[in-house]
Order: sequence, then C-alpha cells, then structure tokens
Amino acid sequence: MDLQLPKSEYPRVVIIGGGFGGIELAKRLKNKPFQVVMLDKHNYHTFQPLLYQVATGGLEPDSIAFPLRKIFRAQKNFIFRVTKVTDVLASENALLTDIGKINYDYLVIATGSTSNFFGNKEIEENSMPMKSIPEALDLRSMILQNFEKSLIEKDADKKSALLNFVVVGGGPTGVETAGAIAELKRHVVPNDYPELDLNKVHIYLIENSPELLGVMSVQAQTKAKDFLVEMGVNVMNSTRVLGYDGHTLTLQDKPIILTSSVIWSAGVKGEVIPGLDLAEIVRGGRLKTDQQNLIVGYPNIYAIGDVAAIITEATPNGHPGVAPAAIQQGNLLAKNLVNLVSNKPLENFKYFDKGSMATVGRNKAVVDIGKIRFQGVFAWFTWMFVHLMTLVGFRNKIIVFINWVWSYFSYDRGARLIIRTFAKDRSIDYQTDDVASVKEVKTL
Amino acid sequence: MDLQLPKSEYPRVVIIGGGFGGIELAKRLKNKPFQVVMLDKHNYHTFQPLLYQVATGGLEPDSIAFPLRKIFRAQKNFIFRVTKVTDVLASENALLTDIGKINYDYLVIATGSTSNFFGNKEIEENSMPMKSIPEALDLRSMILQNFEKSLIEKDADKKSALLNFVVVGGGPTGVETAGAIAELKRHVVPNDYPELDLNKVHIYLIENSPELLGVMSVQAQTKAKDFLVEMGVNVMNSTRVLGYDGHTLTLQDKPIILTSSVIWSAGVKGEVIPGLDLAEIVRGGRLKTDQQNLIVGYPNIYAIGDVAAIITEATPNGHPGVAPAAIQQGNLLAKNLVNLVSNKPLENFKYFDKGSMATVGRNKAVVDIGKIRFQGVFAWFTWMFVHLMTLVGFRNKIIVFINWVWSYFSYDRGARLIIRTFAKDRSIDYQTDDVASVKEVKTL
Repeated sequence: MDLQLPKSEYPRVVIIGGGFGGIELAKRLKNKPFQVVMLDKHNYHTFQPLLYQVATGGLEPDSIAFPLRKIFRAQKNFIFRVTKVTDVLASENALLTDIGKINYDYLVIATGSTSNFFGNKEIEENSMPMKSIPEALDLRSMILQNFEKSLIEKDADKKSALLNFVVVGGGPTGVETAGAIAELKRHVVPNDYPELDLNKVHIYLIENSPELLGVMSVQAQTKAKDFLVEMGVNVMNSTRVLGYDGHTLTLQDKPIILTSSVIWSAGVKGEVIPGLDLAEIVRGGRLKTDQQNLIVGYPNIYAIGDVAAIITEATPNGHPGVAPAAIQQGNLLAKNLVNLVSNKPLENFKYFDKGSMATVGRNKAVVDIGKIRFQGVFAWFTWMFVHLMTLVGFRNKIIVFINWVWSYFSYDRGARLIIRTFAKDRSIDYQTDDVASVKEVKTL
Repeated sequence: MDLQLPKSEYPRVVIIGGGFGGIELAKRLKNKPFQVVMLDKHNYHTFQPLLYQVATGGLEPDSIAFPLRKIFRAQKNFIFRVTKVTDVLASENALLTDIGKINYDYLVIATGSTSNFFGNKEIEENSMPMKSIPEALDLRSMILQNFEKSLIEKDADKKSALLNFVVVGGGPTGVETAGAIAELKRHVVPNDYPELDLNKVHIYLIENSPELLGVMSVQAQTKAKDFLVEMGVNVMNSTRVLGYDGHTLTLQDKPIILTSSVIWSAGVKGEVIPGLDLAEIVRGGRLKTDQQNLIVGYPNIYAIGDVAAIITEATPNGHPGVAPAAIQQGNLLAKNLVNLVSNKPLENFKYFDKGSMATVGRNKAVVDIGKIRFQGVFAWFTWMFVHLMTLVGFRNKIIVFINWVWSYFSYDRGARLIIRTFAKDRSIDYQTDDVASVKEVKTL
C-alpha cells in the first residue's frame, strides 16, 4: 500500500535517519527546489556523544535528544514520518516501510551505525550496547540495579559479579564510560550505599590494541590512561574478549572476570538497509560511495555519515565515524543536489578534521586539534564547551549546562531513576513492578 | 529466606512506601531510638502532582522524581531496599517480600493509592492511568504516537479516534491533564504537524458529578470550567462512562465517542498489602485506623497517607488523599512512636487543611485557601510557587523552574520523546524498534 504524502511539484529527496548528517542535509535543502521527506524510527534526534552521561546518571534523556519535527518547524518543504524502512526497491525508486511504500527521486541513507559484536552471538545476547536513548536508559537502570542487588546477594561469587563493571572497547565512548562509572563509585556510591564495601567495586576497561583512543595522539593516549588509572580503573590493553555468558567474561591468555555488567563499546558497523547490493559494503559494514557520496552502482542513492565510506587512496577505510564528517557530507550533498538539478558541476568531498577529544572525568580530558594537544582542566572545559555548543536546542543547552554546574559543585549525579525501557532478562532477577499487566511490550 | 539487614540495638520500624508520608516519617525518626527500614518498589520518590506535566511533554521524569537513597544520605539509622511486599504475616511480626522475609517491631503502611476502575475490567484494560512515572511516560508516548499515526491513517473513523483525547474524571488531575492537552493542541501541534487539520483534534473532560473539582469552592469550580471551555475542552458533567473497548467510549444517555486515548483519572483506591484483615478496609479501599494511625485490630501496624482512613464522626471517609495530610500523619506518627517507647502519652491526629488548588493552563489556575479564593494569573503563580517549593531536591527545583520559564516564553513543551516503558498493545500498531531482541521485559 502506498503511503500518501503531500503532493509537490519538485523532486522528492527521501532521507533515512535524523542524525547529524540527515539533519544537516535536510536543513540545507530549505527553500530549495526539492520535497524533503525524512524517515526515522524515533521521533527525536539523539546527541550520541553524551549518551554515556545518560547511562551513568549525569543527564536526563530529554536533555540530549531533540524532537525532529521541532528542528524543522519553519521548513515548508519538509515532511517527517516515524517509521522503520524494511527494504529498498531500487529498480522502482521506492522504499518499503512499516507504514507503506514510499517513492523517491533521490534516496539518502543516513542511518548511522549500530553496535558491532563481530559475529559473537553470546556477547551480543549478554552485554549491554549504548547506541540509543533506550539502551542508555537500560544501562543506567542495570548499573543501579546491580548495586541494589549486591546488598541482598549472599553468594560471594554472585555478589562480586554484581560489583564488577566491565567496559569493552577503549575508544572515546569506552574511556568516557569507564571514567564516569569510576566517578559514580567515588562520589555517589559511598553516600547512597553506606553498607557497601567500596573495595569490592571494580571497574575494568578492556581494549584489544596496545593503546586507548586509537585515533588520537600518543600524548592523549598516555594521559587518558594515566587519568583512568588514577581514578581507579583497571585498564587492560592488548586484551581480547573471547566470550561472555552473562556471568563470566572470558579473555585470551588472562584470567576470567566474574561480572554482571559488560558494556560493549568495542566497535560499530554501518546500519545498512536491506535491498541494496551487498557487494558494495566495505569494512565496518559501510556503504562504498564515490567522492560525492553516491553509492557505487546506483544512479540516485546516496549514503552519508557513519554508514558511508568514501573510498579513495587517502581514505582506504572511509572517513572517521564522527559527527563533523557526517555534517560536512550532509552539507556538501545538499549543494550537490542543487547543482545536479541546475546542471552545474558537482564538488568532491573534502574532510576538514576538527580534531578529537575525550573526557575521562572531572577536570580530566584530552584534546587534539591538529598539532595542538592539551590535557587536563582546560581540555575538560574545552570538551564541555564544544559539546554544549553542538547540542541541538537552546533549552537542552541550558538544562545540560545546569546539570554540569550542579554536578561540579555537588559531586553528585542527579538522574538516578531506575526505569527500564526494555531489558534483557539477565539484568533483573527480582521483579518489582506490575508487569503482569503488560500484554505486549513495544518500544518506539 | 530471611533478608539480612544490618543489626541494631533499637526496635525496627519498617515503612512500606517512599511517598510523602513515608519520607516525612523516616526523616522525623532521624537520631531517634529506632532502626528505620524503608521498602519501595521504585528507587525514587515520585512527585505525583506534576505527573501530568510529564505525560504532556512539559517536564522530564527525572525532574519530578528523586532518588530515595539520596534523601536519607546523612541518616545513619536508615536502611533502604527496592522490593515489592507480597504479604503481611502479622502474627509473626514479619513481611514477605520478593527479596526475602523481613521482621518488624512496628510496621507502617504508606503505600499510597492506585487507580480505581471500580471493577470495570474493560476500562482497566484499555484506558491509560497516570499514577507513576512509567505510566506518565507511556501516556506521553501514546499521545505523541497518536498524532503520528493520524497522519498515515486513511480510515476516517480510525483517524478521528486517534485525534479524540478523552480525560475521565474532573478532579485536579483530570482538569490539569485536559488543560495541558488543550495547550499542546494550541501551541505545539500546529507547529509540529502542519499537515494536520486542527479542527479534527478534540479534547473531552468527562465527569460523573455535576461539577468539576468536587472538593473546591463553587467559585473555583465555575472558573475552572470556564477556563477549560475557553481553551476548547469539551467539558461533560453529569456524564457516566459505561465502557471502553479501546476504540469506542460508551456513555450513559449520551452518544458514543470514538477515541484511541482514554486517560483515566476518575478515582483512586488505597494500595493495600495482602495479608491484612480485609474487614478493616473502608470506602476507597483504605485501611481504617484510629486517631493515631494504628490500624484497627493490630497492636503495631500503622497506616498513613492515601492508604489510611482515620474514621471519626467529623471524618466519616477519612481525610483527603493529598500530600499535606500524608505529611502531617507521618510527622505525628514519628512523634507518637518516640512517645510510645518512652512511655509518654500519644497525640491524636489533627488535620490542618492547607487549601487546594488546580492549574488549568497558562495564567489560569484556581486557589482556595480557607475563605480566601482567587483565580487567574496570580493563582497560577501561587500554584507554581507552591509546587516548586514542595518539590524534593534543589536540582529538581531549578530544572523545573527553567522548563517553566522556557515554556512560558516559547509556548513550547520540551520533553516530547517517544520512549515506551511498558505499553498496552493497542496503543502502537506499527512497530519501529528492535523489539525482536527483547527476550523478556520487566519494569522496575
């Protein structure tokens, strides 16, 4: 069944995904001769760089998300639908979705990335990813629930597992999450759980390669590790995770770790829509595009952001999966689409590297901007400033700012409600709400 | 299996429920010769008077809830456990819970109230209550989802049902919710859903009795109704709801209403724990107590707040189920317990009526304080001030204040994320998240 959309005299650009790339593209097409249709499975944009703060009780989910409809309030050529795309019918220039069939003139895949478990089903089943708001909320609930459960657990092994928190993956997300849990342990747990022996709470950060923050300078890598160690995190580099059954984490050539909490930030892969030619998927599950983000082999299907890989000699694996790359690609694609319909020459993508940064904890961050590298308090303020400025929405900026100021002076983290969105059953074995009344659970 | 709790030389007071009454009681027992054990199925206190603002996108859940452990950080004789009480074994002075058996010397039931469907299973199954944070979040998601779904619905009846919002019950919660939805319709929907015909969005407030806000002055009742009508709400007094199958709302002597959204605020009943003598349950499902909140027939089991009814000639149905009554009873019970163990005479409860108020919308509220009655802008500011002051936690006060100031100037409501906690299946029929990965869903 065809989905009825408002009619337009202009060609239709369908954008799948309201992340950084999709939003930039749609904005830049304002007042241009296109009908812009955005599809997303959520009704909001997620500011992914701050998800770990939601997961660790520092921020409310509403303050790092933004209703997509609101971003485009004043844009007349913009249409939004909450839906999940199930198939691309490239030969018909159409998409299948759970609300009907949608035709396009130009299709842009801006679906971002999802957690990569590298085919290990057991780890996928038992560990907690952190790529969306519901996942971050579940993680927050799990961490807090494990503290609650540790108080009533009599079995020593099980108790120890509840208090061992393992973060797998030493990229920015892993480093930031491990640091945030270390701060929870230091500033929140002693007050909230005076009965608990703090010496039994352990935080591990496990990374396959010999260094943390692979993409950053050696200086940043070393300092970040120093910060983490100083904060009490057990950093284990050159360590490979073999399996995790929900209770025992198995490592290569190292002793096992008993743990109820494995947070998986070891890798991402492009979130590819079914129906495209799989031959064009390269390393990291990304769609191979030319330098104008056109997917190789299709005349009118583009990919931008994390799901796209512009393969050139200089970028054999594509560009980094970060917000600035997505935004720059969205921006350029808008220009190129306008040029295309006005028969002007198209431009190739040039990535402007804005640098990279990661925060480890209070007054502790590392920043690389080109040749400029700094760490510590000033880096921390830089990190906060950049994230506040990038956050969508004035209200969100204020609320996040106040939460940060408040946390800075109180050493506290305010958002500690245990509210499950959806959960893997392992993480709760005592049941405290009227779930009997739930007939079927669905998450939008 | 007995739950192990820290040992104490003092008698143990077990409080079931971290609402207004339970918190007040526990606080007042600080540094007194008791061990205080609080049990709650959530790890947070819910500020119920503002739940409707969470349900209508005005506030984030985290800003009207407060971690219970944090309230009692500095209280050495306080122990908290997240659990659900399943039975009272009065003859053994013990409770059964889902984490084990707990003994008490004094038991205080402060479980509050739950939605009362007056035995109508069909309505219970299909309507949305709003007594907890997960329920308020589900309601928020349902309202927003129904707008999204209305855009793609082709069947005229179904479309009309999606855009008819019915609030049942004309007490403060019903009035406030209907008013908030009217403001959503007026200020948010036109911007977010430019494709939608606003004339098709209808809001109904249905009340059994001839007036709204039964407990308030005639002046307040009349003015509240005027405000609602002015804001476009169809107020239907003297109207009895007979049934609701999820699509058709049946009324006595009136035409049916097609609606996908029925919000149930027509009544509450005490949330009674199994195991107590049911003979002592009075009207509204409340536990009958003497004037010192001792449940009739038990030597050491008390009830305070919404779940309690102090039956005297002056109060044949007990006191109003409002925060001040619960707080005052908690306060007095603390004194009386201290007096009891020091063999001093006990005091009877005297209710100090602080007045009542309800907000209908921007600049529109009604306030009764004794003989003083006022309505409009000043009442609205009074309402906001009182609620801000009563809200637990400094950070919450600031965040709520900023949200209100921001909404006042922007006419917007910031928290519009669709995140389901648990859902009745009727409310979503298109599925947009990876629920396939959910093995079992539990809500804490």
